[in-house]
Amino acid sequence: MSDRKYSVGIWAYGGCGDRFSENGYQKNRSFKEKLELAAKTKNLSGVEVHYNGDFKDDDFAEAKKLIKSSGLQIAAVDCETFGDRKFRKGALTSTDPKIRKDAVEIVKRAGEVAKELNAAVVNLWPGADGYDYSFQLDYEKEIELMVKSIKEISKANPDVKYSLEYKIKEPRIRSTIGTAAKATALIKDAGVDNFGVTMDFGHSMVARENPAEASAFLDRYNLLYHVHLNDNSRDWDDDLIVNTYHFWETLELIYYLKKLNYNGWIGLDMSPKRENQIEAVEYSIETLERMFKYIEKIDEEKLLESLKEQDVLKAHKLINKEIFI
Amino acid sequence: MSDRKYSVGIWAYGGCGDRFSENGYQKNRSFKEKLELAAKTKNLSGVEVHYNGDFKDDDFAEAKKLIKSSGLQIAAVDCETFGDRKFRKGALTSTDPKIRKDAVEIVKRAGEVAKELNAAVVNLWPGADGYDYSFQLDYEKEIELMVKSIKEISKANPDVKYSLEYKIKEPRIRSTIGTAAKATALIKDAGVDNFGVTMDFGHSMVARENPAEASAFLDRYNLLYHVHLNDNSRDWDDDLIVNTYHFWETLELIYYLKKLNYNGWIGLDMSPKRENQIEAVEYSIETLERMFKYIEKIDEEKLLESLKEQDVLKAHKLINKEIFI
Amino acid sequence: MSDRKYSVGIWAYGGCGDRFSENGYQKNRSFKEKLELAAKTKNLSGVEVHYNGDFKDDDFAEAKKLIKSSGLQIAAVDCETFGDRKFRKGALTSTDPKIRKDAVEIVKRAGEVAKELNAAVVNLWPGADGYDYSFQLDYEKEIELMVKSIKEISKANPDVKYSLEYKIKEPRIRSTIGTAAKATALIKDAGVDNFGVTMDFGHSMVARENPAEASAFLDRYNLLYHVHLNDNSRDWDDDLIVNTYHFWETLELIYYLKKLNYNGWIGLDMSPKRENQIEAVEYSIETLERMFKYIEKIDEEKLLESLKEQDVLKAHKLINKEIFI
Amino acid sequence: MSDRKYSVGIWAYGGCGDRFSENGYQKNRSFKEKLELAAKTKNLSGVEVHYNGDFKDDDFAEAKKLIKSSGLQIAAVDCETFGDRKFRKGALTSTDPKIRKDAVEIVKRAGEVAKELNAAVVNLWPGADGYDYSFQLDYEKEIELMVKSIKEISKANPDVKYSLEYKIKEPRIRSTIGTAAKATALIKDAGVDNFGVTMDFGHSMVARENPAEASAFLDRYNLLYHVHLNDNSRDWDDDLIVNTYHFWETLELIYYLKKLNYNGWIGLDMSPKRENQIEAVEYSIETLERMFKYIEKIDEEKLLESLKEQDVLKAHKLINKEIFI
Repeated sequence: MSDRKYSVGIWAYGGCGDRFSENGYQKNRSFKEKLELAAKTKNLSGVEVHYNGDFKDDDFAEAKKLIKSSGLQIAAVDCETFGDRKFRKGALTSTDPKIRKDAVEIVKRAGEVAKELNAAVVNLWPGADGYDYSFQLDYEKEIELMVKSIKEISKANPDVKYSLEYKIKEPRIRSTIGTAAKATALIKDAGVDNFGVTMDFGHSMVARENPAEASAFLDRYNLLYHVHLNDNSRDWDDDLIVNTYHFWETLELIYYLKKLNYNGWIGLDMSPKRENQIEAVEYSIETLERMFKYIEKIDEEKLLESLKEQDVLKAHKLINKEIFI
Repeated sequence: MSDRKYSVGIWAYGGCGDRFSENGYQKNRSFKEKLELAAKTKNLSGVEVHYNGDFKDDDFAEAKKLIKSSGLQIAAVDCETFGDRKFRKGALTSTDPKIRKDAVEIVKRAGEVAKELNAAVVNLWPGADGYDYSFQLDYEKEIELMVKSIKEISKANPDVKYSLEYKIKEPRIRSTIGTAAKATALIKDAGVDNFGVTMDFGHSMVARENPAEASAFLDRYNLLYHVHLNDNSRDWDDDLIVNTYHFWETLELIYYLKKLNYNGWIGLDMSPKRENQIEAVEYSIETLERMFKYIEKIDEEKLLESLKEQDVLKAHKLINKEIFI
Repeated sequence: MSDRKYSVGIWAYGGCGDRFSENGYQKNRSFKEKLELAAKTKNLSGVEVHYNGDFKDDDFAEAKKLIKSSGLQIAAVDCETFGDRKFRKGALTSTDPKIRKDAVEIVKRAGEVAKELNAAVVNLWPGADGYDYSFQLDYEKEIELMVKSIKEISKANPDVKYSLEYKIKEPRIRSTIGTAAKATALIKDAGVDNFGVTMDFGHSMVARENPAEASAFLDRYNLLYHVHLNDNSRDWDDDLIVNTYHFWETLELIYYLKKLNYNGWIGLDMSPKRENQIEAVEYSIETLERMFKYIEKIDEEKLLESLKEQDVLKAHKLINKEIFI
Repeated sequence: MSDRKYSVGIWAYGGCGDRFSENGYQKNRSFKEKLELAAKTKNLSGVEVHYNGDFKDDDFAEAKKLIKSSGLQIAAVDCETFGDRKFRKGALTSTDPKIRKDAVEIVKRAGEVAKELNAAVVNLWPGADGYDYSFQLDYEKEIELMVKSIKEISKANPDVKYSLEYKIKEPRIRSTIGTAAKATALIKDAGVDNFGVTMDFGHSMVARENPAEASAFLDRYNLLYHVHLNDNSRDWDDDLIVNTYHFWETLELIYYLKKLNYNGWIGLDMSPKRENQIEAVEYSIETLERMFKYIEKIDEEKLLESLKEQDVLKAHKLINKEIFI
């Protein structure tokens, strides 16, 4: 193995249910059990955990102990501001000042937690923020409130890196922050310098972006804080095993992560509903690692030449010979 | 109100959760409580219930009593063959004979239940059947097993009408029966005469069909057994309030239901996550009823003339004057 | 009629062909003939024309005369930097300095033309800029070149308003500037103050945006320079007649245009392939004008209240009673 | 090379234009010139040509000579019933009996031509048939007319194999025959035995099908007459170079073509707008040939075992080791 650091969202070891499976397609496991499976997973160095989900303040001390004894690092601390019924009409953009304050507090507190756990970033996915229908939201207020919340969060923990995870839809029909460019615009708008962006492969595909291009865009503004790898069928954030749908887009992303000198965690965000969960994560890591090695073998000078000429046949031939038998 | 019969899937009064909300965005309610809300809903005559979900054999007698005292009719008995972990790799198409048998038994038994409850149809949505990845399934076997299951079910209850509800995806990435035409082809293949099709508005939209056209297609073969109304953003089966996204497609469907002399239940399949559930259903019924009335006012001779000429401007002007202030 | 100014892209009166119809589904008409049809169209005050398409430098004097005698205003001067074979691998982002310079010159010159024609904006749609395949483009260079071109164009005509028309795809599989937020980010990046954005309804839908929200977003930064109305089936920029697919999204956009005090042209960008072209434009204008009137009747105080509460049923009921018979 | 027969639609060597490029992105070439390029293309054995497009009755003798001297076989004769302005509101489903008759005659005549050219099939893509708007078509009549036309065509040339090419959209917003199952249903409805189906990879993807599954479905009814290979971004029929987007779906299709003992032409349907056209076709053939060889190396017994178990990790590992370095 390389010295690349692979992590996975610890929910990959949970029930992996959906709205048609109340109890999950997999066994429901405690935080401790999930950590145990993660610890058994080959080539995995870290996990992403949810503050206010996997643990809250009252059991944080216990969680910390479990994490320590697992030997795993914390790649990111995520913020659970979406599952609670009170957030169903918005959290960071709630028009109810009390609810918005509660959400902001959770994210602030996640910053403290991240410091204590030595996490690279707080991964902030504002899943509750958005709308479902025409004539449901005042879009001027929506963005104003989001910018305001970002400012408040930024100020409370200036030494914590917050990484905004954009997603065009789900659970809201349209999210407040749906694309890499929208995340960038709002961070610039708020004028904060400890906010960056999480580029989730599947989210990017559903937004009709291209993950490699989105990463290059974010890197231009030094905002590529974190990445999530997975795959899907392009209509929905299915959180599938890596390289089961989009071989080329995944490989190109790996090329760009190298080209951009990305040195954060290679994070997996998966939900293996019907597969052995450890194997699904291991397979995804092996695949990514293999792709990094392919990329290293490709004659980059010639590749850049072909990109300059937009000569896709030349580029693909150059790549194929290092990859395919 | 007209003499049209409106029903709703009783899950509209449940938790309405998704994978990000374990406990639902709404209150979790018992079958009894759901029936009570349904009974309070204006202009609602019936409900769809899940055999093996809302009740099983052991509490069926109790369920029957509750239904009776609610005063509601049973529009359809649905079959829960998808949420149980054992069905996660398929139910009616499972390659494990024991599991497939279990699924077939549930659907057969739903037929008995439907007779006892005087339901118009058994609504059979094979949600577990399909696949998630390339190289996961033997597609020749998949269809063979589905046809076989259909035959077995048909034979066991020749006097029960089974209505296949097609859906292109969710929870599997691709379902075995994704379109109106696929459902039709498999029914013909099985050679059964007590099977028809449920045209769900949202499923049809996600499959890139047009609900009105799909209904006309099914009617040509006398297969339009049941309909589900709702709305979505076209990417996903969001089960939203009627006429919040697709005004024209909904109105055209209503026109065709009349044109085709459809006289089954006008069934709603909704999941109002953040709205008052009774109001959401009432609003949907009022809207549909209003649309039926618009359609009755339109000069049909002139409309058919414009359809013959594919003169969309003429048709829309004709329609607009009966609808818009 | 109100004092709102409606315009249409003059190509609506052309052949309206596609790749399967070389000669167009409609009659191919000269610029003069197109202007004549536009002049006959009721309630139409202006047109959008293509510099380097409808006319070039050598016949500009003649074109100017034709425009003057038509009595039509010029809403926008568009730039033809996409159809010429030399631009097939990019225009404003071409890695060939000579080709990029040619493209920049066309856009600069369009600025001069816009001044002479008293056009509100130069509408700049960089249709050739983007890519078709993975490993076809250096995305870092792509954005660098686009920002550079924007700067050069801005500087050459500081008193001309350039309006960037974003589009996620077509004719390239992915365009350099695909969303309202990406356009905003690049304008900020370039640091120019005479660039804004054209929000095209159909482009916004295909990008999985919501046109009303995109408009509010752009307005926050004073970038909503121009709008294009039309409709489509959400998968593709079909340039259909207004309000034939997305009633609610169109109505909401109209509400926001009013709410944001948008006072530019209400521009149509349509391609009526099989309809009487004059009637298609007239119908679209009548529909929009009707929608503006509906919006004026709605109790805005109550509407804003319902938006604040995210009470979609309340909002829709409030709206319905002013719209539907 | 194997003894597999590769063909390409001869339009791959034409202008490859779209609605934004009147003169094409490539050189416009005569039928003779296109044949010359095809003849130069390595490993290409045949072409698809359009009757009523590439040649009509008056120049058919000349065309025949050109074909003969090219040394190329004719894989399929296609029917041009879509580009002519008179067919803009439908051809085989036109409500104007005269127009429908004209369309039927073209397809019948294509049957004669196919016999004279010894083509495997007449490829019948009814591109003009469908609709663009709600309330534009009487769907009951639409299907009735299509079935009627199929019967008439079938009867006129009982010894010619007609292969219906389905496509969900373009140039109409929705086509009459959009999926493999719809094509199957209509052929059964017409009761004809010389009609089958063309499974076009890109069309299948846009219809949210899976090409491998669609092929297995068609084969069950002995209807898989012809295939078209290409690739796209899933939103639109982009006719791109093979294996540039969907590696896994393409490989799985190749596996199924072998599994189903498909022995027709491996036809390419591509439109290389910005690439060397000969190279694009050669690269696509090489890629497919390489995939066939991979498939031959895979341990099929173990693969079928993993398919039976729906064990996607097992299957992918099995495949990977024969493919990837």
